[in-house]
Amino acid sequence: MDELRTKGQKAKSASYYLGSMTTVQKDAVLLRVADGIDRNRAAILEANRDDMLQAQKAGLTGAILDRLKLSDERISGMITGLKEVAVLDDPIGEVIQMKKRPNELLIGQKRVPLGVIGIIYESRPNVTADVFGLCFKTGNAAILRGGKEAFQSNRAITATINKELTGAGLPEGVLQLVENTSRESAIAMMKLNEYIDVLIPRGGAGLIKAVVENSTVPVIETGVGNCHIYIDEHAKVDQAVRIAVNAKTQRPGVCNAAETVLVHKNISRKVLSPLFQELQNHNVEIRTSPEIYKQFPDTTPATDEDWEKEFLDLIIAVDVVDSLESAIRHINRYGSGHSESIITDNYSNAQTFLEQVDAAAVYVNASTRFTDGFEFGFGAEIGISTQKLHARGPMGLKELTSTKYIIYGNGQIRE
Amino acid sequence: MDELRTKGQKAKSASYYLGSMTTVQKDAVLLRVADGIDRNRAAILEANRDDMLQAQKAGLTGAILDRLKLSDERISGMITGLKEVAVLDDPIGEVIQMKKRPNELLIGQKRVPLGVIGIIYESRPNVTADVFGLCFKTGNAAILRGGKEAFQSNRAITATINKELTGAGLPEGVLQLVENTSRESAIAMMKLNEYIDVLIPRGGAGLIKAVVENSTVPVIETGVGNCHIYIDEHAKVDQAVRIAVNAKTQRPGVCNAAETVLVHKNISRKVLSPLFQELQNHNVEIRTSPEIYKQFPDTTPATDEDWEKEFLDLIIAVDVVDSLESAIRHINRYGSGHSESIITDNYSNAQTFLEQVDAAAVYVNASTRFTDGFEFGFGAEIGISTQKLHARGPMGLKELTSTKYIIYGNGQIRE
Repeated sequence: MDELRTKGQKAKSASYYLGSMTTVQKDAVLLRVADGIDRNRAAILEANRDDMLQAQKAGLTGAILDRLKLSDERISGMITGLKEVAVLDDPIGEVIQMKKRPNELLIGQKRVPLGVIGIIYESRPNVTADVFGLCFKTGNAAILRGGKEAFQSNRAITATINKELTGAGLPEGVLQLVENTSRESAIAMMKLNEYIDVLIPRGGAGLIKAVVENSTVPVIETGVGNCHIYIDEHAKVDQAVRIAVNAKTQRPGVCNAAETVLVHKNISRKVLSPLFQELQNHNVEIRTSPEIYKQFPDTTPATDEDWEKEFLDLIIAVDVVDSLESAIRHINRYGSGHSESIITDNYSNAQTFLEQVDAAAVYVNASTRFTDGFEFGFGAEIGISTQKLHARGPMGLKELTSTKYIIYGNGQIRE
Repeated sequence: MDELRTKGQKAKSASYYLGSMTTVQKDAVLLRVADGIDRNRAAILEANRDDMLQAQKAGLTGAILDRLKLSDERISGMITGLKEVAVLDDPIGEVIQMKKRPNELLIGQKRVPLGVIGIIYESRPNVTADVFGLCFKTGNAAILRGGKEAFQSNRAITATINKELTGAGLPEGVLQLVENTSRESAIAMMKLNEYIDVLIPRGGAGLIKAVVENSTVPVIETGVGNCHIYIDEHAKVDQAVRIAVNAKTQRPGVCNAAETVLVHKNISRKVLSPLFQELQNHNVEIRTSPEIYKQFPDTTPATDEDWEKEFLDLIIAVDVVDSLESAIRHINRYGSGHSESIITDNYSNAQTFLEQVDAAAVYVNASTRFTDGFEFGFGAEIGISTQKLHARGPMGLKELTSTKYIIYGNGQIRE
């Protein structure tokens, strides 16, 4: 597809320019862009009204409309985000390690930008500004392919940003929005190995699956979270209930919310009643294994699929397990490798769980809801990786970088 | 394909066992396997003779036959390799960083195995033992899919290793060789996302391209090297010639050998004659740009394709450039992002080259032939990555690991 090849070439060429900018220069541009968005609120909101109108006409539902909608407050959020990224430490240029070899070669490993980052995302137009900020701070050019329904909003935001970039003397290609929002343009982007160094999908499970299956460009898989709380036989009941309820209900629509609670059989008699009480107080639908359902017929019988589902809603599956080992086996089988927590006061069980559960973030005695770049202290987040390559868990600025070996010689040849 | 799904399940299950082995246990097994190979030399050599016979019947050529052939010396190399890996530091379990957050959550990042590593390789049967050693030391299960022509050798080596693994009480699935060597089995392996965490192709450009294009499993792209030596106007002529000749001729068939020399116009009169003299003394075919060809009609005129070719042979392309900037542009355009070297005594030019050349390893005043896990001091190497994600440059044990966040709480919930 011609549009993508042209944009790819421009992005690659801009990426060399970005890679040689100083931190001071980059931070000044980020603040300038923040101000530009502030001055251009009216135009952005107007474009967003067009998108909203179209979406309503097309019969889109409440949750999508909510994600699509921009408000003065959400625009302020974009502005604050850019200003916050401007004050974060710049990871680019850091020499992670350097050592002298026996032959006097001095070999160092230096952090450099990835180059060109492609983002394929769905209906949230604020992602446009957020992603720009993170990519720009790390010296990466960005090609954004947003959803059709958010196109006017995305275009208004990228136009605003690009006006400031041009004003600051930057070349074309630093930030580009794909104009063609057909499925073909997404597929073409996934095959653009010559120009795109990494592709990060942001959106629902369907989008992520499509990118993983079709992309020849390296992908960082983000998002899907089937997270568990395991209440060990040595748990404090109050703490266990408080954490499980928080992990499910504090914000049920996000990837680090819990979807299943596993309870050790020796504590189930004490835990299940207060747990179900609290969950029901929060209007959570409880889907239970046959064993539990017998005792709690006011719950819903769980189906086999419920153990592998990311409900993203006020629904939770609950099962009883015979042992710590069964809990770990259940989690490694059904989990999506996102966030898992054991509630226990037993030292060995805590260590075994941390050791043997195969996930990006494994907790003892805390809610899974903390898996987040801000909560982890990164000051930013581009997504949460559930793959093992390159980055695992919340990704901040450092995860948007690569490295390069720099070698200082004085005439060395290989014998 | 059933074989691959079965092997995938076994590998995944074995990977959990491997991940919880201690370094002491793993090192003892590596030494045991080394001894097992030593005792089983005769059977391995016999299997290899079968492969060689078949290959000769099939009319395979000299270079492939050489890669395929095992000798007592090559088997000793496999044994030494395993023993060397046993004494290397184990990266697994290292906590890279750990800090306390304001809410008292203690968040650490710990090195863990990748899980299951798939390797698709061609005719070298010694890769079988090497890859096993590196994967095993880092707690990874391995699924190997070698070339058809090396099948008997690969089977003899994996059987020898597996006999020792069983003897040491390890579960099935730690090391598996794919029996089906059809193209279909390779393709099936590339789609086995459920069980394989990363795929590393080892072989020629065609194999690597096929894996990058077809794999939905995350890939680490290794190998292709179109490396350059740029002789700056401020180079010492002797040093420049010595390094360029070494980079081309010391071992022309490998990825870190130089394929193109670029010479600054202000020094070309001094450099080209002695350079060509030395290259010709080493029987190197010199392909030159029209400008050079006019002066050196005993060279071969270069075609446009020569600038992007990995000759892997005693052939080199040579051009004159107007400036450091043109050299960098040429390299970023035609290079494969592997290894690039500037020869100069000018401080600013050296720094600019290190900064602006986009490659895994960038040198000043040294041969590109040093891009190698052993030369870099890693003590091992599974390949040289030319992509930017996860690992870039020579990959040692550390590059076969992922990380996991471990979080110690005391009841934290998110407000």
